[in-house]
This record gives sequence, structure tokens and C-alpha cells, in this order.
Amino acid sequence: MEEATDEEIAAEAAVFGPFTDAVRELVDVTIRTEVDPEEIRAAQAEVEALVERLRKKQLDGSYGVRFRADGKRGRNWGNAVMGLRNPIAPPLAIHTDGNGRAWSDFRLGAAYEGPPGLVHGGVISLMLDQVLGHAVSTSGRPGMTGTLTIVYRKGTKLGDLRCEAWVDRREGIKTWGKGRLIDAEGDVTAEAEGVFILPRWARDLDRFRAAAEATEASFELE
Amino acid sequence: MEEATDEEIAAEAAVFGPFTDAVRELVDVTIRTEVDPEEIRAAQAEVEALVERLRKKQLDGSYGVRFRADGKRGRNWGNAVMGLRNPIAPPLAIHTDGNGRAWSDFRLGAAYEGPPGLVHGGVISLMLDQVLGHAVSTSGRPGMTGTLTIVYRKGTKLGDLRCEAWVDRREGIKTWGKGRLIDAEGDVTAEAEGVFILPRWARDLDRFRAAAEATEASFELE
Repeated sequence: MEEATDEEIAAEAAVFGPFTDAVRELVDVTIRTEVDPEEIRAAQAEVEALVERLRKKQLDGSYGVRFRADGKRGRNWGNAVMGLRNPIAPPLAIHTDGNGRAWSDFRLGAAYEGPPGLVHGGVISLMLDQVLGHAVSTSGRPGMTGTLTIVYRKGTKLGDLRCEAWVDRREGIKTWGKGRLIDAEGDVTAEAEGVFILPRWARDLDRFRAAAEATEASFELE
Repeated sequence: MEEATDEEIAAEAAVFGPFTDAVRELVDVTIRTEVDPEEIRAAQAEVEALVERLRKKQLDGSYGVRFRADGKRGRNWGNAVMGLRNPIAPPLAIHTDGNGRAWSDFRLGAAYEGPPGLVHGGVISLMLDQVLGHAVSTSGRPGMTGTLTIVYRKGTKLGDLRCEAWVDRREGIKTWGKGRLIDAEGDVTAEAEGVFILPRWARDLDRFRAAAEATEASFELE
């Protein structure tokens, strides 16, 4: 358990945020550049040298989630969708009302392509999974994704997008989340439903015990 | 329609494959590095300069899919899962038996994290979507994803993974694909089912007309 202060976290974000943004630009141009092969080879040598310098001191594994000593401000900076330090993440800034609703406006460029000019169908499920999970987890009850279903209504053009999600209902240890992806013209291009399961470690907590017991009872009845 | 020869395509792959691999390493170390802030700032300046050079000549938009004049060897090098030139793609090399089965062995590192040490649930759906779609499309019938359902059985550790998919059945314009994700211990961590729809443009082709008409007839009966 680290004990970073708010100031230290802000200072780290101020260093790694812009650096990661620069690497995101490099990801984009790696796909789109049309400069000559010699220039690509030179760029490769520079990137390799940079990687070597940055690897001199690094985490053994992945980033994980960092908490402060007071348990506040979990930092998921490695997260594939939201991570401030993850160049794969667009990244999504997800807003919540603390009452089971979550939403995010974001832009997906060339790196997220599937069919020509369109967002990859699996990238759509990736974004929806994160926003649905966020809606559920910030509604006051932790949940692991049990099932996720995506219905694709039409192709989603690369560009500005909006993702919305909300808690639909609860039964025992299960919470249903729903969500949708909306394109720049305001059309719903995909819809999602997810079933999120209260993790085992949480079922012994006083505030979730009733839900866990209700579920066990209903299982016995079946 | 470009008219690249096999030799030209191989030469381009020989330049861009290793360059993109280097950028993938940079993505990984951007998340994991623990070097001092001054070094990060210096790295940022270098990456920004590199991006500027590579952007001097670039595609207006995304990569799309390139075909040869003879229609062969579509290159989806920008694809978010398979793209040789996309640093976000692991990338997956997907093998097929031409008869509706597809599989891929690959490795997911720090950039694909969701819960600490585990693959992001949405990344799992991203990989499964691609391999299922590949199984369906190489079975002799094109298909756009209509619905994708993922059932998560247990957490998937970052590391070596295998994805398998197959065509389950067909009815009219619909094809059902199934698949699963298997971890390094051989456990199935997630299962997928997708419904793929024959695109409108393909329904007028002689070899798919019967399927399209059968679907319309069954819709009329309902």
C-alpha cells in the first residue's frame, strides 16, 4: 500500500499524462504515415533506443490499481480504456451521477478501426463494457462482469462518440446494466446489456449480506 | 484500387512490421516505466519530434482495407486486433481451416489490463469478436456482427492465451459463431456466441440468393 499524497499524484499525472498523449499520437501516425522506408527505419531505431532507456527502471508486471493509504483515489492508470498512462486507452473520462448512471464523450481515431472507416465491433464492446461496469460499480455495489451482450444496430463511424449506461435492475447478487453507443449524428449504433455479479469477497460485508442470502434462498427454491 | 505486387507488399511489411513492434514496446513501457520525471519529459520531446516527422506525409484518414488489383490479399493492416501497422493490435495471427474454424495463440501484456493482473473484460470481447468474425467470414459467407454475447467464467490472467471459434449453424441470412478463450493453464475463462448477418450487398449474389430468399419467406410466415 503506497502512501502518495494528492500533490504527488497530481505531479505524476502532469508528467505522465502529456507523455502518454504523445505516444498516442505516435500510435496514430504509425498507422497513417506515408514517409519513405529510410525514415521509418530511422524512426524505429529511435523508438528502440527510447524503450531501452525507459526500461532501465520499470515495474515487474502490469500497473494494477494503486490506492492511497486512506483507501481513496484508486488510480487505474494502466486500464485499457481509462488509463492515463495507457496509450491504448483513448482514454475515456467517465462521468457518473453516483446513482447508477454513467456517460462519456470521446473520440476514436484510426487505431480503433475494424471495417474501413468504422469502429471495430470489438472496440465498441470494449468501451461499452467499461462504461456499464462503471455505472454499476459507482451505484454502491461492486460487480464483476458475468455476461455482456452487444447488439449492433448500424456501422459506427470513427470520430466523436458518446457512451451512456445505467443500472436497470437488481436481483440478489446480480445487477443488470444497460447502455448504448451514440454517433456524431445522434444515432444509436449499438446497445449493450450486462449482468454484473457481486464478488465473493463482498458477500460477507454487512451491507450486501441480505442480497447474497436472498440469492441463495432463490437458488434453493429452483 | 492500388496495384501492389506481392514483392512490394512483402517489402512494406518488412519495414512497417518491425517499426510497429518497436512502438508496441514503447506502449508497454509507457505504462511500466519508473524512471525520473526529467527522463519522461525528455522522452516526450523526442516522441513529439518523431510524430511531427512522420506526419509530414500521411493518409488523410484511417488505413482501411487495401486490395490488390486482382482482388486478392486484402490487407487489414490498420485493424485494431490484427493490424500489422496498428500498435494497439497485439497483433493476432488467426489461422483458419477454411471450413468455419479459426484459432489464434497470442500474448497480452500490461496494455490490456482491466482488474489488477487480469485481462480487461472488454478486451476479451474484442479478441473473441475478431476470431468469431474470422471463422464466419472464411467459411465462405461474409457476415457483419449482429449480436455478440460473452459469458465470463473466471478472471483471465495477463499472459499467453488461445482463442478458438467455429461456425455453429446457419439459418437464412444468419450465421451463428461460437468461441472461447483459454488461458495458459488450459482453463476456459470466457465463452462467446455471435450472430453474423449476411450484408445487403451480398444478398443479390447468386450464391447467397437462396439463403436471402429463405429468410424473407420465414419472416413472412412469422
